[in-house]
Amino acid sequence: MNQIKSIGRVQSKFKEAASPEEMRKEESTIIIDSKYEDGLYKIEDNDYLQVIFSFHLSEGYELIAPRRHGKERGVFACRSPRRPSSIGVTTVELLERDGRKLRVKGLDAIDGTPVIDIKPYANVMDTPE
Amino acid sequence: MNQIKSIGRVQSKFKEAASPEEMRKEESTIIIDSKYEDGLYKIEDNDYLQVIFSFHLSEGYELIAPRRHGKERGVFACRSPRRPSSIGVTTVELLERDGRKLRVKGLDAIDGTPVIDIKPYANVMDTPE
Repeated sequence: MNQIKSIGRVQSKFKEAASPEEMRKEESTIIIDSKYEDGLYKIEDNDYLQVIFSFHLSEGYELIAPRRHGKERGVFACRSPRRPSSIGVTTVELLERDGRKLRVKGLDAIDGTPVIDIKPYANVMDTPE
Repeated sequence: MNQIKSIGRVQSKFKEAASPEEMRKEESTIIIDSKYEDGLYKIEDNDYLQVIFSFHLSEGYELIAPRRHGKERGVFACRSPRRPSSIGVTTVELLERDGRKLRVKGLDAIDGTPVIDIKPYANVMDTPE
């Protein structure tokens, strides 16, 4: 498997997790490490980004677990942060780029979360048919 | 950063990469490792899945690179497989589950690609407002 690197960190008013619905309403900031800043070239042309991040405080997982809503599900049939690969993926709105700071709306990641990758949202890849 | 694990492999007729548009039209199969099979419990209730995979043959990256279409962009402003964290994310249609085999449509990953995570597509997290 290839390398996974942290490319930056989340700055958020959420110091611990709230419900996704609650976190999705708020703005937060992604601060990209200065060594990766050039990778943001023309990112401001995109209205929506996919943010891939590490659930860095998550520990362990169960293959079958109860969900927040409803009955139990397999870990690959729910979005729990407790997963074999503790990676989160969320589509956010890009509100503003200021140098290596991205102000976004809708990121359900707590303050200090390591960001692994950012991609422009692309209908061809991301939208169900 | 937490652990990233391979949970299975892609079986595809594509032995090397084609255009995303071409690969998105085709069906392929994800074979989950037997130790993770229980994590698929009730996954068949979902019509669409997000598949997170490793661009395992990708080597190196440039922060600013030409795109397939159009002018050059930062690596975080394009979907190139050559990235600091070589991870792909694609939304696919789940056609059938047969034990630990998932037949899907729309996965732009070549034969042998390690799958890192699978999540149910969720409007609340994945759809632009």
